[in-house]
Amino acid sequence: MLTYIVGAGAMGCRFGYQMAEAGQKVVLFDGWQDHIQAIKEKGLIITGDQDKTVALDIRPFGQDASVCDLMILFVKAHQLETTLQETAHLRDQHTKVFCLLNGLGHEEVIKRYVDPHNIMMGVTVWTAVLLGPGQVRLKDSGTINFCALDPSGKEVGLEVEALLNQAGLNATYDQEVFKAIWTKACVNGTMNSTCALTDCTIAEFFSSEEGRLIVRQLMHEFITVAKAKGIALDEEKIYQYLMDLSVKLAGHYPSMHQDLVQQKRLTEIDYINGAVARMGADLGIDTPYCKMVTEFIHVKERQIGVRA
Amino acid sequence: MLTYIVGAGAMGCRFGYQMAEAGQKVVLFDGWQDHIQAIKEKGLIITGDQDKTVALDIRPFGQDASVCDLMILFVKAHQLETTLQETAHLRDQHTKVFCLLNGLGHEEVIKRYVDPHNIMMGVTVWTAVLLGPGQVRLKDSGTINFCALDPSGKEVGLEVEALLNQAGLNATYDQEVFKAIWTKACVNGTMNSTCALTDCTIAEFFSSEEGRLIVRQLMHEFITVAKAKGIALDEEKIYQYLMDLSVKLAGHYPSMHQDLVQQKRLTEIDYINGAVARMGADLGIDTPYCKMVTEFIHVKERQIGVRA
Repeated sequence: MLTYIVGAGAMGCRFGYQMAEAGQKVVLFDGWQDHIQAIKEKGLIITGDQDKTVALDIRPFGQDASVCDLMILFVKAHQLETTLQETAHLRDQHTKVFCLLNGLGHEEVIKRYVDPHNIMMGVTVWTAVLLGPGQVRLKDSGTINFCALDPSGKEVGLEVEALLNQAGLNATYDQEVFKAIWTKACVNGTMNSTCALTDCTIAEFFSSEEGRLIVRQLMHEFITVAKAKGIALDEEKIYQYLMDLSVKLAGHYPSMHQDLVQQKRLTEIDYINGAVARMGADLGIDTPYCKMVTEFIHVKERQIGVRA
Repeated sequence: MLTYIVGAGAMGCRFGYQMAEAGQKVVLFDGWQDHIQAIKEKGLIITGDQDKTVALDIRPFGQDASVCDLMILFVKAHQLETTLQETAHLRDQHTKVFCLLNGLGHEEVIKRYVDPHNIMMGVTVWTAVLLGPGQVRLKDSGTINFCALDPSGKEVGLEVEALLNQAGLNATYDQEVFKAIWTKACVNGTMNSTCALTDCTIAEFFSSEEGRLIVRQLMHEFITVAKAKGIALDEEKIYQYLMDLSVKLAGHYPSMHQDLVQQKRLTEIDYINGAVARMGADLGIDTPYCKMVTEFIHVKERQIGVRA
C-alpha cells in the first residue's frame, strides 16, 4: 500500500517516520521549502524519547507522482480545501482519504472532492512538536480511533488499521469515532478559545467560578448540536473529564493561545466553536456562547493582522 | 441648601469646586487620606481649561457633621452600599439623595436606605481626570439630566436644578432620564467590556465585522431588557449613535480598559452588562452575550487578583 502523508508538520513527520521505520512505502508532501530541503539534505532529526536521524521521502505539493492508495491529511484546517485541490492528481477512484485534523465538519469539505466511500475520519492523541526545519521532538505514546464514513469502507478500513498498527500507531477501527471526535472538540472548544482570549493558563481559567460557567455553557452547546446530529454524548461525564484534564494540564497554555497570543497566527476557531455555531444555525439551535467566543477570536485575529 | 458630595474623585471635585465657586454651601467626603490631606493643606489644584487652586471643605467619611439637604453620590458603584451605610448619620427624612453613578440598577440599592420620594437619579456627560492627591484636570463642558424617582419629588427637583445651574453645571430636570441612563449604559456596555477583554482600541473593535456583530447583540439585549422595564429605546437610532461615537473616539481605550488592563483595578462590569444579565434573569429574558462578557471580565479580574 502506497501512503502519502499530506502536511509534513510535527504529526505528519511522526506518522511518516513510524511508517517508514516499519518498512512501509510512504511519501510526505509539504509546502515549506526550508523544511523539505533540510530533510532531503540531512534527514529528519528526531529528539525526545530517542535521538536519531532518519531518511524520509519528502516532496513539495506541486510535484508530480503516481496515484497513492492512502492519503493521510495532516494540514491545518484552513488549508484543507486548497490542499484537496492541489493533490487531486495524486488520487484516483480507489484512493482512501484519511482525515486526522483537529476540529469538526471536515468531512463536509472532503466530500466535495472525494467519494464518501473513500473517506475515513479519525482522531488521535499522539503528539509531536516541530522544532524547526527538519527537526521534531517525539515523546510519549498515543492512539488513533477512526472509521470509514460509509459502512462499505469497513473492509479497507481494517487493512488501514493493520497498516497503522504495524507502524506502532495503536489504531482502532471504531464505529463510534464521531463520539471521540466531538469529545476532543469539546476539550478544544472549552479550553482553547477561552484561554486564548483571556490570556490565561488552563488553571487560571478553570479555577474561577465564572470560567467554569463559560465552560459549562460552551460544552452544553457542543453536546446539544452533537445530539441533533445523532451523536449522543454524556454531558456530566464530559464535564468531569474536562475538570480532570484542567487539573492535569493546569499550568499550560492551550495550542490556540500559542497560535493567537504567542505566535500571532490564524487560529482554528472556525473548525471548533465556529463549526458548532454554523451547524447550530443550520439546525435551528441557538449557540450564543460559541458564536460570541468565535466573534471575539476573529476580532483578535483581525487586530493582529492575520485575518483579512 | 447644604450639599454633601460623597466621593471626592475627579467628578466629585469638579462638582464641589463649581458649587463652592458659585458661593454655595458644599462639603466633600472621601476615604482617601492623602487626597483629603493634600486639599486641606494646599487646596484643590486645577489644571485644564484654567489653572487655579481653590480651597474646598473636604472631610473623611467617618467624621461627624450636621445633616445635609442634598447628598450627591459620586462613589464607585461597588462602594455604593457601604457608602450609604457609612453616611446614614448625615441624612434625615428631608435629605435628597442624588445619584450620578455610571451604570444601571443603583436606585434598587439606594431604595434600601432612602425613601423613594427622596431619591433623584441622573446621568452626566461632564468629565474630569484625577491626576493625583489634590489635583484634577477639568476640560470642556457638559450637561446633567436627572429626575426624582417619585413624581412627588418634582418640586424639590426643580430647586436642585436651579442650584446646579447656578453653579454652571447645565442641569435639566428630565422626566425621561431613564432613557438617557440606559443609552449611556448601552455605550458603556458595548465599548467598555469588549475593548477591555480584547485589549483593543474602540476603532480596532468597531472596525471589525465580528466586533460589530457583538455590539449589535449586546445592544439588543440592553434594549430588550429596558423595554421590559418600560423604557422604550430606538434600536436603530442607538446603533447609529454608537457607530458615530466609535468614529469620534476611534483611537481611544474606554475606561474599563484603563481599569482592567492599564491600572489592574476592579471594573464596573457588574453595573453594566452584569446588571442587564441580572435584570434579564429576573424578567425571564435571555441575555447570553451580556452574561458571557461579564463572566469573561470576572475571570480577568480574578486572574489579576482584584476579585476575591
